[in-house]
Amino acid sequence: MAAFGSILAPAVKDHRSEICDNVLPSEQSGKNQAMNDLESIRINGDRLWSRLMRIAQVGATPAGGCNRQALTDEDVEGRELFISWCRQAGCDVRIDEIGNIFARRPGTGHDSPAVMTGSHLDTQPTGGRFDGIYGVLAGLEVIETLNDRGIPTRHPIDVVVWTNEEGCRFDTAMMGSAVWSGNLPLEEAYALRDQDGHSVLEELDRGGHRGRFPATPGSVKAAFEAHIEQGPVLEQGGESIGIVTGVQHMSRHRVVIEGQEAHAGPTPMALRKDPVMALASTLPKLYALAEAHGPDGRVTIGCIKTLPGSSNTVPGRLVYTVDIRHPEEAQYIAMLGELREYIAASCGEFGLSWHHDCFWQSPGLTFHKECIQAVRTAVEIVGLSHRDMISGAGHDACNLASRVPASMIFIPCENGISHNEAESIKTEAATAGANVLLHAMLHQASGDVQRA
Amino acid sequence: MAAFGSILAPAVKDHRSEICDNVLPSEQSGKNQAMNDLESIRINGDRLWSRLMRIAQVGATPAGGCNRQALTDEDVEGRELFISWCRQAGCDVRIDEIGNIFARRPGTGHDSPAVMTGSHLDTQPTGGRFDGIYGVLAGLEVIETLNDRGIPTRHPIDVVVWTNEEGCRFDTAMMGSAVWSGNLPLEEAYALRDQDGHSVLEELDRGGHRGRFPATPGSVKAAFEAHIEQGPVLEQGGESIGIVTGVQHMSRHRVVIEGQEAHAGPTPMALRKDPVMALASTLPKLYALAEAHGPDGRVTIGCIKTLPGSSNTVPGRLVYTVDIRHPEEAQYIAMLGELREYIAASCGEFGLSWHHDCFWQSPGLTFHKECIQAVRTAVEIVGLSHRDMISGAGHDACNLASRVPASMIFIPCENGISHNEAESIKTEAATAGANVLLHAMLHQASGDVQRA
Repeated sequence: MAAFGSILAPAVKDHRSEICDNVLPSEQSGKNQAMNDLESIRINGDRLWSRLMRIAQVGATPAGGCNRQALTDEDVEGRELFISWCRQAGCDVRIDEIGNIFARRPGTGHDSPAVMTGSHLDTQPTGGRFDGIYGVLAGLEVIETLNDRGIPTRHPIDVVVWTNEEGCRFDTAMMGSAVWSGNLPLEEAYALRDQDGHSVLEELDRGGHRGRFPATPGSVKAAFEAHIEQGPVLEQGGESIGIVTGVQHMSRHRVVIEGQEAHAGPTPMALRKDPVMALASTLPKLYALAEAHGPDGRVTIGCIKTLPGSSNTVPGRLVYTVDIRHPEEAQYIAMLGELREYIAASCGEFGLSWHHDCFWQSPGLTFHKECIQAVRTAVEIVGLSHRDMISGAGHDACNLASRVPASMIFIPCENGISHNEAESIKTEAATAGANVLLHAMLHQASGDVQRA
Repeated sequence: MAAFGSILAPAVKDHRSEICDNVLPSEQSGKNQAMNDLESIRINGDRLWSRLMRIAQVGATPAGGCNRQALTDEDVEGRELFISWCRQAGCDVRIDEIGNIFARRPGTGHDSPAVMTGSHLDTQPTGGRFDGIYGVLAGLEVIETLNDRGIPTRHPIDVVVWTNEEGCRFDTAMMGSAVWSGNLPLEEAYALRDQDGHSVLEELDRGGHRGRFPATPGSVKAAFEAHIEQGPVLEQGGESIGIVTGVQHMSRHRVVIEGQEAHAGPTPMALRKDPVMALASTLPKLYALAEAHGPDGRVTIGCIKTLPGSSNTVPGRLVYTVDIRHPEEAQYIAMLGELREYIAASCGEFGLSWHHDCFWQSPGLTFHKECIQAVRTAVEIVGLSHRDMISGAGHDACNLASRVPASMIFIPCENGISHNEAESIKTEAATAGANVLLHAMLHQASGDVQRA
């Protein structure tokens, strides 16, 4: 579909005409012209890319990725760079009590609810340059583009940096957005500690990023999150944009198996209490579980640790994590049941005691119909190939969706690689996604049109 | 068999009569009396136990074990406590260039080769109170007992503390004895580094335990090492002493599998390069390997580590260790071949690159006939139930055996548990083993009797 000047199907035309209803002259021909003018605007891809490359220098790793784990010095440096850009763009910047940063471009309406976008700037320890960062800087690029053109919006536009989305340093993913959405008590988030014993509260204060504003939703009309797909689906399908209609069910589990330390040499195999024997029995079943619930079922064993971790000692303790995901609730629940069953059976087989806990979960969800439609309309305005999809990963937008209308926009990433220093996107993909974000936000921010 | 005053089989009698040939009057009845006197002496079990308990306070862990990893402050404190006891016992104490400590009770003979015993004072991170320590303090107890009775020996008696036997902090087990025996170049040992980057050389200097004496065997007539069995065989058989005739073949292997980090959610299972999938395929085969070469085959996966170790990231790298042991060479070699085959097959199956290296090995060995016989004679003198056995674990005596006549004495440990804070022995077992050590050493140290 062409970007503009094309023949539009009536349904689409209706939506698009709404954009201009409240901000432009009501005379019909002028309205059409104004609409065409608005539809023709595009973000500055060079500026967006240049900022992506600039912030990637903060916490850059030798292999070309980033290490800006939440609230480290590197993360704070990245956040401050973002704040400086927002202030240069004339934004009012506020930080809330869990460190979420809100950069606002004011609207023309009196007390109009905000149209929000954002993502995160923190990364995995060996993370990439785009996961999260892209969505934040695409949001800032929307504001810069509106500034360049002098386009006012009735609704204020907020670009948000959510604190500790990755959950790798402090083991709760999407922490900042969870607190803001009321899904995680503030004190519980403050009390999370990293492996060195530093708490979120201490680290917020150390970096000077504990703000005074309450971490609660104000008045929000719509929220969008642009993000790299972190999977290979768009690239393999040759599509530019994923219109994300929902997020799969997901949870993370910790399994602790108690064995008995013993010397590797003299202890007969039959007399050992070796937790790795239980792992040997369980691992193949876990991958078979993913296959049985395929192709959408996902099982990831991201962390395995033996204690004391000496090559000539049978481990006394084994800890591993299992990340389980499925877009369909019934299958997801079946997977959880089978996980417990396999752990219990394998530990029972070897007479080992064990403990299992689900330390994080995010139920599947369907995004807000109107936000999905705003993205669909924007994709059509910009004229990009696209597909509807379910997100395999959790995102801050999942938390937001529990309180405000929200949806997401995906762009392809190279070879589907993410959470990896080799994570990469094409410049045109970055530009395309930001253009869709621009028009989706404009669709919502321009006026208070009532839609069916 | 009774301790003394019993009817002895002629062969045994012959051996026992040799003890006295060179240190006591040659007149037959006096000789018999002197032999009986010598055979009747016993170590002081209370003193030995009290020292075992005292040194266990150094680096004591809350769970009742010890953490005195090689050349840590705790190890140095333990070594200095031992040295102070040796000096109180009138010993001449020397430290060699790799930190091995030699406490000597001089002999009466001019330049007679030493009769040596010893073991190690360093422990695993969550180690026990007896592994190694028992052999060192049993040796000191032999000297104290000879001092108490004023019994001279022609040959000097050396009690040795070998540096870094455990190989957990610095990843080369039996390091000090390996250098002394010429099985490991001194500079290579100096260059070993712990996980924090500290080298053996730096740590020897930091603790003030790099001595000036060359780490090479002087003149040694025989070497014994008393040690806890670290397995359940003696306890289950109800025997007090293991006469160790040899040591099984053993080696330690490190397997590194390279995967590709990817996000746990969006990456379809079929498109992953997940090294844990290869582990899932290999682990059951490794345990089956031990079973196929059972009951003596041993396979231990002591260390498994995923990198980056994040619960929602497919690991980009997996490292694990495999410890392989078997007393029979042919079966041991077959096990090594199968290990390589399974690793290659599993990584091939998932298209993963991998690297395998054997970072430590100790070939099986048969101890010196005369030393074994000295232990056998001593067991009969003391009158203890016993069995011949092969050591499942490597010990400093394995290194010594490549240069000097050597053998070992095992005592039972409770439930066969070792390399564990719960490691425990009975006081009577400690006493029995030290008595056997006393008489085995006396057998060798008394005179230069030529034996068939």
